[in-house]
Amino acid sequence: MSKPKGFEKPVGVRDYVPYAVDKLRAIERNVLDCMGRWGYRQIMTPTMEFYETVGVASSTSDQKLFKLLNNRGTTLVLRSDMTAPIARVVSSLLKEESLPIRLSYHANVFRAFEEEAGREAEFFQTGVELVGDDSPEADAEVVALAIESLKAAGVKSFKIAMGHVGFLNGLFEEVLAERGNEQQALKKHLLDRDYVGFRKAIRELAIGDGQLEVLEGILRLRGDKEICDQASELSGHLLARASIDHLCKVWEVLEAYGVSEHVLIDLTMIGDFSYYTGMTFEGYAAELGFPVCSGGRYDNLLRQFGRDVPATGFALKTNRILDGVKGTVVEENHPVLIRYTTAARKEGLARAAELREQGMAVVTMLVQNESETLNKSAEVYGKVETFS
Amino acid sequence: MSKPKGFEKPVGVRDYVPYAVDKLRAIERNVLDCMGRWGYRQIMTPTMEFYETVGVASSTSDQKLFKLLNNRGTTLVLRSDMTAPIARVVSSLLKEESLPIRLSYHANVFRAFEEEAGREAEFFQTGVELVGDDSPEADAEVVALAIESLKAAGVKSFKIAMGHVGFLNGLFEEVLAERGNEQQALKKHLLDRDYVGFRKAIRELAIGDGQLEVLEGILRLRGDKEICDQASELSGHLLARASIDHLCKVWEVLEAYGVSEHVLIDLTMIGDFSYYTGMTFEGYAAELGFPVCSGGRYDNLLRQFGRDVPATGFALKTNRILDGVKGTVVEENHPVLIRYTTAARKEGLARAAELREQGMAVVTMLVQNESETLNKSAEVYGKVETFS
Repeated sequence: MSKPKGFEKPVGVRDYVPYAVDKLRAIERNVLDCMGRWGYRQIMTPTMEFYETVGVASSTSDQKLFKLLNNRGTTLVLRSDMTAPIARVVSSLLKEESLPIRLSYHANVFRAFEEEAGREAEFFQTGVELVGDDSPEADAEVVALAIESLKAAGVKSFKIAMGHVGFLNGLFEEVLAERGNEQQALKKHLLDRDYVGFRKAIRELAIGDGQLEVLEGILRLRGDKEICDQASELSGHLLARASIDHLCKVWEVLEAYGVSEHVLIDLTMIGDFSYYTGMTFEGYAAELGFPVCSGGRYDNLLRQFGRDVPATGFALKTNRILDGVKGTVVEENHPVLIRYTTAARKEGLARAAELREQGMAVVTMLVQNESETLNKSAEVYGKVETFS
Repeated sequence: MSKPKGFEKPVGVRDYVPYAVDKLRAIERNVLDCMGRWGYRQIMTPTMEFYETVGVASSTSDQKLFKLLNNRGTTLVLRSDMTAPIARVVSSLLKEESLPIRLSYHANVFRAFEEEAGREAEFFQTGVELVGDDSPEADAEVVALAIESLKAAGVKSFKIAMGHVGFLNGLFEEVLAERGNEQQALKKHLLDRDYVGFRKAIRELAIGDGQLEVLEGILRLRGDKEICDQASELSGHLLARASIDHLCKVWEVLEAYGVSEHVLIDLTMIGDFSYYTGMTFEGYAAELGFPVCSGGRYDNLLRQFGRDVPATGFALKTNRILDGVKGTVVEENHPVLIRYTTAARKEGLARAAELREQGMAVVTMLVQNESETLNKSAEVYGKVETFS
């Protein structure tokens, strides 16, 4: 292990120099403003939380949590998402507030990745939680808001893939009752979107032809609204059926919002997060190969914090949008340069104050005489004024 | 050690519920916009830095740093200020950029305090660094900008106390040459503003009456511009004299800015930070007993990161302003409530979209019929519209 050099920073974290900050800030502001127009109020929580509460309740696997000890020897974590901290706040500071509660956030979160993987250890998420409403209306609201938020973030072309964890759970329980390991193996293939592996795996199962056909049929359950009808035929199981019914209703509401053109149903989708209990969704931008947002319903999380209420929400993967999407362009700031000699200092500074009052960016510089050359190239400045 | 309860968070960190967030965000935005008008461009750096580089270089004492290990066994710290990280960036990512460089930030920083002390372990700072200019002009610029920033943050009545570490260092070296421990003890009294202890300590020193008089005279060096003249008489030492000369020039520039009414000279002031090398200052709001901003010149810091250039800057103690200053008031947001029955869903959601388009905050709600009662008290909403 070599000692880090003075100018180095840890692997997986980054600096944002001025232009990148301006772009990130523009996305942050536009998205939070959009969420505000949907009645979501911003919340902020600490960077550090107790491992035993928020850490354990979070969707992040244990080895990906950044842990540290406080001076009492209690284990803390750097937050890995905002959903668990918000569940804590809704169950404590906001516990008297009547439901539903609509909250938004823009926050940095932390994941301890293998350094080799080149993934980010600290990144931004911008999202909402809608707490206390288990209706299809609520699920549709967060999907519709995710669509508006992606637009506000400058993502022009994208699709939302929407599924339901209850459907696959129900179907697998029906076809592979009490064969948990095999169910897990199949889910892993779907999570990895490894359909070849999935097909191979189901053929190796000791099941009948009818059951095999049902499992094979899952892979065709991606597409438009008619998928709902197809899926209904596939399963007589109560949980799977209820899930499909819920999803069909969400679709209806999305049609009323006028945004269903952005949505497709994908019943092969398995949320990455073990705590999702219902509808889940992911957003894909046309130019990128990975999701730019994800969300879903998590009705069991708040119970762990002492307030047993349902909740649904999503988060934009803000850094991916910042890096991968061309949409958001911010203007480069070219300040006015005011040069002044000692004799004309008061005059020069008064002029600077006047222009700032008008909202302009102004940089000031003392010069020995009027002909002193500029240290920076003139293009840095929008305009140069000299007082002598 | 008891296990934390579900709704608990670590000591010294806080949640910001919606109204507090709105106020904090308003301060952040107003101050950063102000700094932008002075030509300062925003920068962001990671929460985690190497202990061996930024941690060691920071102004925070070792036991107050939050430390953690990465998976290579290297010690990381949660940043305790933004000055050292910015010094790192100026020496790496921005090393080709010509001087001066003007940067601003709004960031959370971390200090591991004794839990009993009730101080904050995570809090916000909003500040600037002006890199590459060692002139009195540069020091005056950051003081003048601190004054504008405090106004932008809503602080109405305040004073800036300005000193110079070179003056006391020079004077002590002259009067107490090679008596480092006694110098340190005296500085500690001044840092604590324990003038009674200072007077007692200097009387116990084995020094002549003339030297005693000089040291006693220090305590009178607080006030207006005439302090500069008094101080010049006090010391024949080169460093002390150069410091005073510099400070007098800074004052002149502040007069040209038209802000000297906010400033007083306090030569008893010892910067808390061991890395200050020149002018230092603190801002006090009328209603608060502790500083709401602090800053100064630190010409030796950037050398540690491989770019040997002078720098000066300040940071607002944003949380203290948020909590202690009444100035910033933000309007409570009362959204419009759109209620709709299933039959009128499309109509209701279209109306919501229309109002949002106009910039209004709108919450929607499905009702069984027009007479369904509201879950929340009607005052929560600015207006209620029902579609059925």
